[in-house]
Amino acid sequence: MDFFQCTTFSEAQQLIADSLSEVRANTQKVTLVEALGRIVAADIIAQEALPPFSRSTVDGFAVRSEDTFGANEMSPALFQIIGEVVMGREAAFELLPGQGVAIPTGGMLPPGADAVVMLEYTEQHADDMVMVLNMVAPGENVIAKGDDVQGGKIIVFRGQKLAPQHIGVLAACGWADVVVYHKVNVAIISTGDELVGINESIKFGQIRDINSYTLGAMLSAMGCSVKPMGIVKDSFEQFFAVLSQAVSTCQLVVISGGSSVGARDYTEKAIAALGTPGVLIHGIAIKPGKPTIFGMANGVPVFGLPGHPVAAMVVCQQFVTLALSKLMGQKESAQAVTIQGHLSRNVASVPGRDDFVTVRLVKQDGQYIAHPILGKSGMISSMSEADGIIHIPTDKSGLYVGEMVEIVLNKSVEW
Amino acid sequence: MDFFQCTTFSEAQQLIADSLSEVRANTQKVTLVEALGRIVAADIIAQEALPPFSRSTVDGFAVRSEDTFGANEMSPALFQIIGEVVMGREAAFELLPGQGVAIPTGGMLPPGADAVVMLEYTEQHADDMVMVLNMVAPGENVIAKGDDVQGGKIIVFRGQKLAPQHIGVLAACGWADVVVYHKVNVAIISTGDELVGINESIKFGQIRDINSYTLGAMLSAMGCSVKPMGIVKDSFEQFFAVLSQAVSTCQLVVISGGSSVGARDYTEKAIAALGTPGVLIHGIAIKPGKPTIFGMANGVPVFGLPGHPVAAMVVCQQFVTLALSKLMGQKESAQAVTIQGHLSRNVASVPGRDDFVTVRLVKQDGQYIAHPILGKSGMISSMSEADGIIHIPTDKSGLYVGEMVEIVLNKSVEW
Repeated sequence: MDFFQCTTFSEAQQLIADSLSEVRANTQKVTLVEALGRIVAADIIAQEALPPFSRSTVDGFAVRSEDTFGANEMSPALFQIIGEVVMGREAAFELLPGQGVAIPTGGMLPPGADAVVMLEYTEQHADDMVMVLNMVAPGENVIAKGDDVQGGKIIVFRGQKLAPQHIGVLAACGWADVVVYHKVNVAIISTGDELVGINESIKFGQIRDINSYTLGAMLSAMGCSVKPMGIVKDSFEQFFAVLSQAVSTCQLVVISGGSSVGARDYTEKAIAALGTPGVLIHGIAIKPGKPTIFGMANGVPVFGLPGHPVAAMVVCQQFVTLALSKLMGQKESAQAVTIQGHLSRNVASVPGRDDFVTVRLVKQDGQYIAHPILGKSGMISSMSEADGIIHIPTDKSGLYVGEMVEIVLNKSVEW
Repeated sequence: MDFFQCTTFSEAQQLIADSLSEVRANTQKVTLVEALGRIVAADIIAQEALPPFSRSTVDGFAVRSEDTFGANEMSPALFQIIGEVVMGREAAFELLPGQGVAIPTGGMLPPGADAVVMLEYTEQHADDMVMVLNMVAPGENVIAKGDDVQGGKIIVFRGQKLAPQHIGVLAACGWADVVVYHKVNVAIISTGDELVGINESIKFGQIRDINSYTLGAMLSAMGCSVKPMGIVKDSFEQFFAVLSQAVSTCQLVVISGGSSVGARDYTEKAIAALGTPGVLIHGIAIKPGKPTIFGMANGVPVFGLPGHPVAAMVVCQQFVTLALSKLMGQKESAQAVTIQGHLSRNVASVPGRDDFVTVRLVKQDGQYIAHPILGKSGMISSMSEADGIIHIPTDKSGLYVGEMVEIVLNKSVEW
């Protein structure tokens, strides 16, 4: 029953990446507030220096640093204070030798000044005279114009997913709008004669459609617009009509259960009928997730995923994500970040196959211990109780107790 | 100029948690599709077993396992095949000894059958007769009713943030709606005479408002409804009016720059005037972020954050998140997940103070190396270029090159 001529894990990744090397989502302009989590479509270059003027980092007196040279508590330097810098106003003083200006944290350094003496190191001498009790070096207690960002420098690169800190640097540089890739429209088609919708009553022999919910949630979390196309049963004609509509209205199509024994022929035939090159992958040497189909129908990537909920999630995470990151020109896949932990027991695998094992994490003495979740495949509870997944690569026949493994987390880190 | 009587990091966390121990967001019912990323407000109990009937995990023949005992290739067991299980239909056969039923993967096990023989281990003998070439144990190749989820068991606990796998288990158990906590309305007030909005033109001495964007993005990513209240300048009266409105319409208030020298008195006075117990924290022994104010105004938590962008983000991550997770009854703070890496150089700190240092991560021989980002504090670029932040606890005078450190990631992991 080895019905698939399997592609290896890395070949499958390469094939999917290559198939999408020329396809890109459209771009659109959004406001900065809407840009969180979106992918930048072109390098963004600072049009101005940040800070736009030299600023004090402390409360004190702006001075010419050379006037403080040699100053100490025994022989302070005397300064004439000619005014006060007001926050948010131009410091329109021109310092002459021996003069200083009172300045608050963040205030603009006046022309001529090149350092700030902290208030702690000064003593009032007369109404407009201050004694400075130690030396300051040029640039001391100052952020110079352009220290944070130089004008003309790239502040956010194309393909960056915008996190709060990127939103911050864009705000700082005055970018009220950003050009990002459009959200990718993803169609999800569920197949399976045993499936019923979540609001329907269930009869003996039927089970509820899980995958359109888990896949929809995963794809939403990855920044897609998800378009559920319902549960398709019965006939090739009906399936072909739904898939045609999906391919013509969406940029990516996921068929849940589309690789199961009954539906496989439908899926492959329909993909092929919708445009070249048709089906490119008939099965991947992974567990779970082997019966996976991938094809390109008239420029639109189509995935036929296994019906087993865990297998469908693993394939979505490993391959659909990759396709999405290519569509949006992301440099790294969203799933690249992992944590490390020690395995609590031996886990067997088979060389030539990549295995994915759900684990629970327990923190012990500052280290994570990864406990594989045992149980029959396809159980959604094994996924909902897991903290993450470990990947046993193709060249290993298993992993050993105590071994350090990388865990792809099942939960989100906020920023 | 040590103007604050500082609270330690852990005292501050405790005080914030204690202040919010009795306050909870309201709850609401949402559809399962809308529930992604929301926090469940009550334990959810399975009303039915999953799977709702025993299912085959392979293609083959459902049999009474005892009828196969002793079977092997030399002396196969002979079965009469009395029919075929159809996907999605009740298997209404009653197996007698020596009888079997053809069954597809996922099909319902007929009454009397307790195991499935894989197709590979059978040979067709006559039209309705099949030879079974090896033994199956009771339960072999079967997921029994309730194996995945037992009826009456808690499938999602109160306080869980719903990830795709939780959405999946809820779909599987037929939960079309979920009761979750309302999104917390968070007001963000920016203060600072030097600040101008992102769409305004900038004059010498002025800088753009960064924090309302970074804080707004962080709080959105944490699942809040963010309500920007604009930039407040000039007078206590104006500030008090805006803060009053924020406290009466939102469940949490963040004042950016509300702890700077000029605004501190305003902030403390206004919080105190709005209700007991008023200001509880005047400064926290952390760097950056020391000038932080926290109070409770008539049951609403109010944070006065430093104006420096990096300090504001650190305080938001360490303390505002904690307040939010308390408001929504989350068991663990969203920021709990970190990765480990080796420090690339010594980093000095001061005992009695908790320090936060932005780092860049480089992967080397399968391990992360954390490179501290040097530079003057308050630079947004030091945050936008960082991959994460390390925390130097209060009892350390620094961290050493090569030391293993925990890094809170600056980027999101999708599910």
